[in-house]
Amino acid sequence: MSKLLESYAAGRWYTAPDEGTPLLSAVDGSEVARISATGLDLGEMVTYAREVGGPALAKLTFHERAAALKALALTLMAGKDEFYALSTSTGATKRDSGVDIDGGFGTLLSYASKARRELPNDTVYLDGAFEQLGKKGTFLGQHVYTSRRGVAVQINAFNFPVWGFLEKLAPAFIAGVPSIVKPASQSAYLTELVFRRIIESGLLPEGSVQLLSGSARGLLDHLGGQDSVAFTGSADTAATLRAHPNVVGEGVHFNAEADSLNASILGSDVEPGSEEFDLYVKQLVTEMTVKAGQKCTAIRRALVPSALMDDVIAAAQARLSRVVVGAPDAEGVTMGALASIEQRDEVLKSLRGLTKSAQIVVGDPDNFDVVGADKATGAFLPPILLRSDDKDATEPHDIEAFGPVSTVIGYDSTDEVIALAARGKGSLVASLVTRDSALARDIVLGLAPFHGRVLVLNRDDAKESTGHGSPLPVLVHGGPGRAGGGEELGGIRGILHHMQRTAVQATPDILTAVGNKWVTGSQRNDDGVHPFRKNLAQLRIGDTIVGGPRQVTLADIDHFAEFTGDTFYAHTDPEAAAANPLFGGIVAHGYLVVSLAAGLFVEPNPGPVLANFGVDNLRFLTPVKADDSLTVTLTAKLITPRSSADYGEVRWDAVVVNQDGDPVATYDVLTLVAKGEDA
Amino acid sequence: MSKLLESYAAGRWYTAPDEGTPLLSAVDGSEVARISATGLDLGEMVTYAREVGGPALAKLTFHERAAALKALALTLMAGKDEFYALSTSTGATKRDSGVDIDGGFGTLLSYASKARRELPNDTVYLDGAFEQLGKKGTFLGQHVYTSRRGVAVQINAFNFPVWGFLEKLAPAFIAGVPSIVKPASQSAYLTELVFRRIIESGLLPEGSVQLLSGSARGLLDHLGGQDSVAFTGSADTAATLRAHPNVVGEGVHFNAEADSLNASILGSDVEPGSEEFDLYVKQLVTEMTVKAGQKCTAIRRALVPSALMDDVIAAAQARLSRVVVGAPDAEGVTMGALASIEQRDEVLKSLRGLTKSAQIVVGDPDNFDVVGADKATGAFLPPILLRSDDKDATEPHDIEAFGPVSTVIGYDSTDEVIALAARGKGSLVASLVTRDSALARDIVLGLAPFHGRVLVLNRDDAKESTGHGSPLPVLVHGGPGRAGGGEELGGIRGILHHMQRTAVQATPDILTAVGNKWVTGSQRNDDGVHPFRKNLAQLRIGDTIVGGPRQVTLADIDHFAEFTGDTFYAHTDPEAAAANPLFGGIVAHGYLVVSLAAGLFVEPNPGPVLANFGVDNLRFLTPVKADDSLTVTLTAKLITPRSSADYGEVRWDAVVVNQDGDPVATYDVLTLVAKGEDA
Repeated sequence: MSKLLESYAAGRWYTAPDEGTPLLSAVDGSEVARISATGLDLGEMVTYAREVGGPALAKLTFHERAAALKALALTLMAGKDEFYALSTSTGATKRDSGVDIDGGFGTLLSYASKARRELPNDTVYLDGAFEQLGKKGTFLGQHVYTSRRGVAVQINAFNFPVWGFLEKLAPAFIAGVPSIVKPASQSAYLTELVFRRIIESGLLPEGSVQLLSGSARGLLDHLGGQDSVAFTGSADTAATLRAHPNVVGEGVHFNAEADSLNASILGSDVEPGSEEFDLYVKQLVTEMTVKAGQKCTAIRRALVPSALMDDVIAAAQARLSRVVVGAPDAEGVTMGALASIEQRDEVLKSLRGLTKSAQIVVGDPDNFDVVGADKATGAFLPPILLRSDDKDATEPHDIEAFGPVSTVIGYDSTDEVIALAARGKGSLVASLVTRDSALARDIVLGLAPFHGRVLVLNRDDAKESTGHGSPLPVLVHGGPGRAGGGEELGGIRGILHHMQRTAVQATPDILTAVGNKWVTGSQRNDDGVHPFRKNLAQLRIGDTIVGGPRQVTLADIDHFAEFTGDTFYAHTDPEAAAANPLFGGIVAHGYLVVSLAAGLFVEPNPGPVLANFGVDNLRFLTPVKADDSLTVTLTAKLITPRSSADYGEVRWDAVVVNQDGDPVATYDVLTLVAKGEDA
Repeated sequence: MSKLLESYAAGRWYTAPDEGTPLLSAVDGSEVARISATGLDLGEMVTYAREVGGPALAKLTFHERAAALKALALTLMAGKDEFYALSTSTGATKRDSGVDIDGGFGTLLSYASKARRELPNDTVYLDGAFEQLGKKGTFLGQHVYTSRRGVAVQINAFNFPVWGFLEKLAPAFIAGVPSIVKPASQSAYLTELVFRRIIESGLLPEGSVQLLSGSARGLLDHLGGQDSVAFTGSADTAATLRAHPNVVGEGVHFNAEADSLNASILGSDVEPGSEEFDLYVKQLVTEMTVKAGQKCTAIRRALVPSALMDDVIAAAQARLSRVVVGAPDAEGVTMGALASIEQRDEVLKSLRGLTKSAQIVVGDPDNFDVVGADKATGAFLPPILLRSDDKDATEPHDIEAFGPVSTVIGYDSTDEVIALAARGKGSLVASLVTRDSALARDIVLGLAPFHGRVLVLNRDDAKESTGHGSPLPVLVHGGPGRAGGGEELGGIRGILHHMQRTAVQATPDILTAVGNKWVTGSQRNDDGVHPFRKNLAQLRIGDTIVGGPRQVTLADIDHFAEFTGDTFYAHTDPEAAAANPLFGGIVAHGYLVVSLAAGLFVEPNPGPVLANFGVDNLRFLTPVKADDSLTVTLTAKLITPRSSADYGEVRWDAVVVNQDGDPVATYDVLTLVAKGEDA
């Protein structure tokens, strides 16, 4: 008997007392493993996540969580050979395994990188700028995101046993929410192996990730308003889960990503024989054959100008005829097996539905060659292309054959192709091949409401294109309607899905304390030490330096114009400047104002401040006239230590006022400051 | 017989053929109106919204929709007296009506203002910066929001017949999505009157708003993945709607805002007799009595340090004893009627539940005075304060008496008060009275995962505070778990809830065309005319000017240091500069670089460019050493005409490179440019 997969629950590996259900190789039908969660206490897993995993994650900042994920990705990558070896049993070729395994580890790295670049080194994320809620500025609003105090349950599909769970786990982990990973049985042995290496690494806090190998029945009964379920799989199962009483009545957050009838559109500007025509056909064939077409993002509908249907089919046939189906590790094989005999039979059943209104033009499911394996025991199919000439047919837009199957459909206008794509009732992705920008705008904006992702391909981006079927960690993945109505990934967006957005209304002082970011109107600290003389360990939010006043003379303005060459009439020509509706006379250059302000707040000697690397949100509010006097106030606003460097970033609030106290310029100054030690 | 309320459906007013159900005055039980939607074709309303309203809105930009809402608000405000008069029948005092009526119109104005300041003058909203997806920059990703092609169904509660529908309608309208408004029957006569004035105004495009007076039964059967339902009301009804097959299986977007057990916390730092103590008690009494406590945001649980329970109750009693209950328009009345006899009886039923574990300490539902009305026919109750001393009791955290009823509960530690608040299982709002910033941070961040809004009140913001119970258009409204798990308002956030987010992957040229915003790597147009000589009608995205080169000498750096006073050692001290880990020698000031760049791209003569009003995202990328030569490229990036002025904003992409082509500074220059006419 093969190995019984274990669950990792409440801090220990759990082995079910029964024999479990056998999981068979997609290639030869042999038993790869068995699976069972009989007797597993699902309620305990939920409680453990909430009471052990959540608090452990809450102790780490976004940056610390990111560092753990990065270390994990590097560890897993170093040992990936065993994952590739086991992946073969799922029917995956080496190319397929790369999408799953390297794609999964790459997602961890992408999240680790994004989090450190775009999130504060803290546990709270501030959403947008504060809102002033009263005239005097004593009452402000700030939206904050905080980690949900629950568990993220992740129910995955069989087709990506590695990427599938890591793309859900990474954003939840960075968000500070513990995960319970529930792989689809068919390929759970690969998930279990990777998960085992994760636990062995010791890199993630105990309780932050748990594994459920086997049935999740009853799991949702334990969930409430702080918990979430992220599901990838069929629309039917999604609907069943979404109707669960705890989703309907207790506020469990539910996100679904379901298979959809994704379209790829050949632009009406593209001529046969052109680079774009070849790119279109090549991408179609790739999407039909990678993972044997078992991708929820694969192209199911090839929408092409009616006049080009024959050309597209002929070109696709030429490429498809070179596809070699067989055992993933056999020499020359370019397309492997489907996940199981059951999956193959599902595809054949869908194919019977499709052929009600479409005809097969490439491939014969009853007659094809298989290299290095036996058709009787392996789950093989050839790539199959159909052609639909019935524009009113519903099947091509409704029936998804989850395998190497696509249907070519003709269109005759831009409006029609948009409408045809929309007949999928919401899809994960559409692609469009065109080099015509105006056409691209019309079609992309027409498609957008019905899609989570739209890719435009032509000769200019072909070399760098990641392809129709590949979700990327930095872009959202998911789609409306039939595609599940959910959203995952998208960089920081995916992290925020696991956090609660809350509007906080308070005084500036209290908002500064809550968000660890200095807010206008909040207390300033001037302890007599120039804040540029303080290293990161010494500097405090609110530390302030006031510089000035300095008078700006007409001679200064004249000189600056001459020196820089910025002789704009408002600085140089009194008569013309007087006619300017905003100035009504000579004004100082904005760049002169900020240059002088820097001269007023700078600390000239070597110290912890290494460089000014930028300025944000500079606004010139009141014109500076000749002989105005400027005073600048610089206040430490946000301090972001870098774990990977011996310095960090300090954002300073700068306000320049004139002799009347009117603000003439506001901006943020960005500096790099050495870490050092507390004095 | 009173007037039968009509529906506004598919471009006409619809009168049901039957007599309808009587709607009774909350004050005296007299019949105010009748309501019926018998025979109304709900499917036609949905189709009309999609086929007439949606396309009409799609023709308008965000700014044009905002202008329509602003005009509408001003029109409605000018005629508000009739709304106030009718509002009395709902039991509302003048103060209550102000919250509903002026609050509703104010929400329109706030959305109109936000949209024009924060959205482009276009129909597409770009979400975040583009992502470079390959090393060469030929393949980029950009998230865009486009309007859903469906209808926003808005099912409102009885307590805010005006604000309730306008706060849902405004964001949907700006988003370009038509609305079907379905008021709660009890107060639908006021909604219908306001709606009638809206239609009469002719300010909103036909089909963009429809009114359903009567039952919405069957409406959801017509909805799909492009449609949404926003519901405000009871958790039970929310659960029923959320379980509808079209929500569960067809991807109808569902947002709920349900009543919750909102808490108000008296900080442990607050002493009796202090300003904060008085603020706490005053706010509690206000929230109990405004709208006779019929607000989903009202304070149901007063969490106070155990030692102060007696003091709080005594102080509340003193204030509550001054409340005068009666006919809203009677002299001296400070609290009106509940919405109906049924609502009053519901509150009495809830009160019986609460008194299982709490005792009434203020108010007697069987014995109280009513001014100017009859207790037998009007829906009156006195304010009732309870005290719970049983910390394990569930009732105070579970049972919501939707009227002038609150329960005082003691706590003994920060952790305990956070846990008590969380026992509401998710609330719309919590408030905290404290002046201690550190305590505020701990409690606010502890409360946040369970709340949509948290207000911190003390003497410093009291004068400007809008209060515990008031959602604001610029802040999100909604809460997790029991509060419905939804989110409304929040400025632009509320608009985006009605739009689909899509990741677009394409070349820079195509992204520029799709988003109407110039993207790095995209084509530049240099037609020989300086773009500063073009007015808004002549200027095109991509118009470019290249200036330079200009050499920066050591003398320039020395001079700039002396002139501005910015004598930072990296600009002035060769030895110290050499030791700087980032520079390794004298470098030019960043402000010098951008000042010189301005000199290179400026057009000195009077022309359409009126002013440079700011700079965004300035980053210094490569240090500029003495004798480096600078070249600047300035490209029109985003053009935003203002409908309210004879100029608009132009955002320019600026890149400064050195003699090796390395970028030394990148930033956006913001200018005001006259509209003018096409040349």
